Amino acid sequence: MRIVIGPRASNRVARLNIPMKKSVKIVPGSVTTPKGFKAAGVFCDIKRLGTGKGSNKGKKRDLALIVSEAPATVAGLFTTNQIQAAPIKVCLERVKRGKVRGIVANSGNANACTGKQGLKDARETVEFCERALALPAGSVLVGSTGRIGVCLPMDNVRAGIIEAAALLGNTRQHAAQAAEAIMTSDTRDKQIAVEFLVGNEPARIGAIAKGAGMIQPGMSASGKRPAAMALHATLLVFITTDVAIAQRPLQQALQEAVAQSFNRVTIDGDMSTNDTVLALANGLANSERPISSTRSGDFITFQAALNQVCLELAKMVVRDGEGVSRFVTVRVNGAKSDAEADAAARAIGNSALVKTSWHGGDPNWGRIIDAIGYSPATVIEAKVDIGYSAPNSNRILWSLKGGQPADTPFKNLCAAVAPREFDLHVNLNLGKGKAILYAADLTEAYVEFNKGDVTDPSSLGG
Amino acid sequence: MRIVIGPRASNRVARLNIPMKKSVKIVPGSVTTPKGFKAAGVFCDIKRLGTGKGSNKGKKRDLALIVSEAPATVAGLFTTNQIQAAPIKVCLERVKRGKVRGIVANSGNANACTGKQGLKDARETVEFCERALALPAGSVLVGSTGRIGVCLPMDNVRAGIIEAAALLGNTRQHAAQAAEAIMTSDTRDKQIAVEFLVGNEPARIGAIAKGAGMIQPGMSASGKRPAAMALHATLLVFITTDVAIAQRPLQQALQEAVAQSFNRVTIDGDMSTNDTVLALANGLANSERPISSTRSGDFITFQAALNQVCLELAKMVVRDGEGVSRFVTVRVNGAKSDAEADAAARAIGNSALVKTSWHGGDPNWGRIIDAIGYSPATVIEAKVDIGYSAPNSNRILWSLKGGQPADTPFKNLCAAVAPREFDLHVNLNLGKGKAILYAADLTEAYVEFNKGDVTDPSSLGG
Repeated sequence: MRIVIGPRASNRVARLNIPMKKSVKIVPGSVTTPKGFKAAGVFCDIKRLGTGKGSNKGKKRDLALIVSEAPATVAGLFTTNQIQAAPIKVCLERVKRGKVRGIVANSGNANACTGKQGLKDARETVEFCERALALPAGSVLVGSTGRIGVCLPMDNVRAGIIEAAALLGNTRQHAAQAAEAIMTSDTRDKQIAVEFLVGNEPARIGAIAKGAGMIQPGMSASGKRPAAMALHATLLVFITTDVAIAQRPLQQALQEAVAQSFNRVTIDGDMSTNDTVLALANGLANSERPISSTRSGDFITFQAALNQVCLELAKMVVRDGEGVSRFVTVRVNGAKSDAEADAAARAIGNSALVKTSWHGGDPNWGRIIDAIGYSPATVIEAKVDIGYSAPNSNRILWSLKGGQPADTPFKNLCAAVAPREFDLHVNLNLGKGKAILYAADLTEAYVEFNKGDVTDPSSLGG
Repeated sequence: MRIVIGPRASNRVARLNIPMKKSVKIVPGSVTTPKGFKAAGVFCDIKRLGTGKGSNKGKKRDLALIVSEAPATVAGLFTTNQIQAAPIKVCLERVKRGKVRGIVANSGNANACTGKQGLKDARETVEFCERALALPAGSVLVGSTGRIGVCLPMDNVRAGIIEAAALLGNTRQHAAQAAEAIMTSDTRDKQIAVEFLVGNEPARIGAIAKGAGMIQPGMSASGKRPAAMALHATLLVFITTDVAIAQRPLQQALQEAVAQSFNRVTIDGDMSTNDTVLALANGLANSERPISSTRSGDFITFQAALNQVCLELAKMVVRDGEGVSRFVTVRVNGAKSDAEADAAARAIGNSALVKTSWHGGDPNWGRIIDAIGYSPATVIEAKVDIGYSAPNSNRILWSLKGGQPADTPFKNLCAAVAPREFDLHVNLNLGKGKAILYAADLTEAYVEFNKGDVTDPSSLGG
């Protein structure tokens, strides 16, 4: 696998072949795998289901804490939606300061479109957390996901923080409870950990994520939309590492890793008001040899490790998307530019007709060429190739070559798109632009889930 | 109802209040209502279902003819998809010449992505038609809709043309058979006719249309995308009129009518390779006083009549969209510009989450503000109003005012979105830009229909 270092938007073209499997090892673990991190997840009835105290057994947890025993360098990326939830606003202020100690996050309520009260509640949440954990002022970040337009039940939030603070621990079970607490329509938790060497010191990255719907993230550090960024989901990702790294290289590494992973996925084409990726680096692994520049060998290793963490989590998010039955890696090559390749890939990955044909196991190249034809990408019909392969395989079965149906038998094409996961290859044959998009089908189950039940407002999603 | 005359893209701002109901009357009828037009629709097995000759009873017709007894001025608008079907290419060449005599159209096969053979087949279709009807060379236009990437069964097409030519007639039944012949996944035919006065002479416009899926048209006269045009469906619309009008005002009137109607609808956000609107004006009503300029009173009356024909048909297309259970008129006001209002309306009308909430009867303003937040339109959360009304009513029930939940009881909001048709009002309160979009919900039935059945390739849509 080729790793691209540096933001694509810049002129820096440092493409390196890093034998990732050798230098970065996936290990069983999560946010508590890096040294010095503790986590907890509790149920405090954020949705106000009306369950009384003491009856939280069997309820999905809804408030998570992640805490570093040492001050951690922080980097963050946030939704570029113009409607930004209160927790995003609080994080934007605090990430700038460079050092934090922890994250408090809740599911069940997005604290979005809640006006001044919402912002007050988000601030009270982090400040209450700091007091409960005896942390410095300004050192806790916050993430929320769930229903939009409803104020947080602050009594429940405070009770949850007190309970979680008392339960903090560094085992995999503690991390798993935090991972559960940020889930909404996710059917399973999403956790990963990797190990690698920084110099001769073993170092670790751990992470948890939630996804499921309203997924087509387009995140930037400022929460403002860069001109070149495509419109792109609620995604919460919390990353911990014991690597010692300065904020600038950490932020750049996170941007690059997210550009190749979370910003390359789409489930339903909707971009959330709450997308947040936070990375905390407490330096306990290699404190004597911190990464201060993006030019060092250690940075390249860290980037490769972070890329893998983000890509694996991003794929988990798509595979566990609402109602998803098929996971399709859309590979567009030969576009006039990377931006055009991206536009073509997103037109395919967000086309209702293409997505329903994937659901039906129908190798319908007509809908695919139709979608790229109305995308902003330059397309010349007589040059378009469309084919299918197994995931990450180069053995492509072509359905269209030079704009004309290839002679591959229809039943072979059907067999190629029958598996739960396959790759779609589109070559526009016009230039060197390329893009990958991790996409999903559109199913009756997605519609059924998202139409909700108005007789039960607590069932209605964000 | 206010009628806007003149293309919005031009500087011409002639907004007139035309009491449409008084000057333009909807009458029972179709493409054969204007003087001098005949039509026919037959079954010739374009999908090669293998039905033998003589057994076409009970089969949906699939080839239509519309013929004018006198040379007709022609205007056309075509998909701006970069992948254009062969019939579009043939029409683009022929509409330029200014005068035609008829249209041949088929369903079941789009003749798209069929390369040189497809273009040859499209040309042979019109030329065969001209010979069968003893019409001048170059005087017949063609439209196709159906599966992409399969060549037309030309023996069947020729047999169909011969049969249809023999059956041509000017009754409502003849027109209804033509309307049936262009249907694909439509559940009912779409026909309309209006009468009005040009000078003191009664004149008529009649039309047929088909829609159902791959519906978000963005059409232009050249088939090229104007810079200002949003990306927008297969839509075939054939309009006949006995008004005498020169090509230039006819083309302008058609552009304006389509800009306010077919280019303002979305079902699934997919734009087809085959969208075609053709208008034929044979001049038999007012041949002594032809409309030669867009400045005349007669032109304004004609524009009003054409607007109404196109808008009624466009709404029929959305109401009969694949799996559609709710029809929502999205009204965005107060945007910084009309283009921004359009972008906001399309983000709403194409959001999978908004559309599924409509299906569920859920007045979920959170998903709506989320969609406009990621749209290219400028949005300030604290200024956004979102409300609902009955169709065309000014009695708006607000769910959000100034970015904050209004105090309308949830059950009242539910009641507002429970009917099969309602209006959604969004006011961005930033400027004077406005847009209307006729949109639909997203249902399990849409997914079920479009996933197709790969064991029966003839079931697979375009």
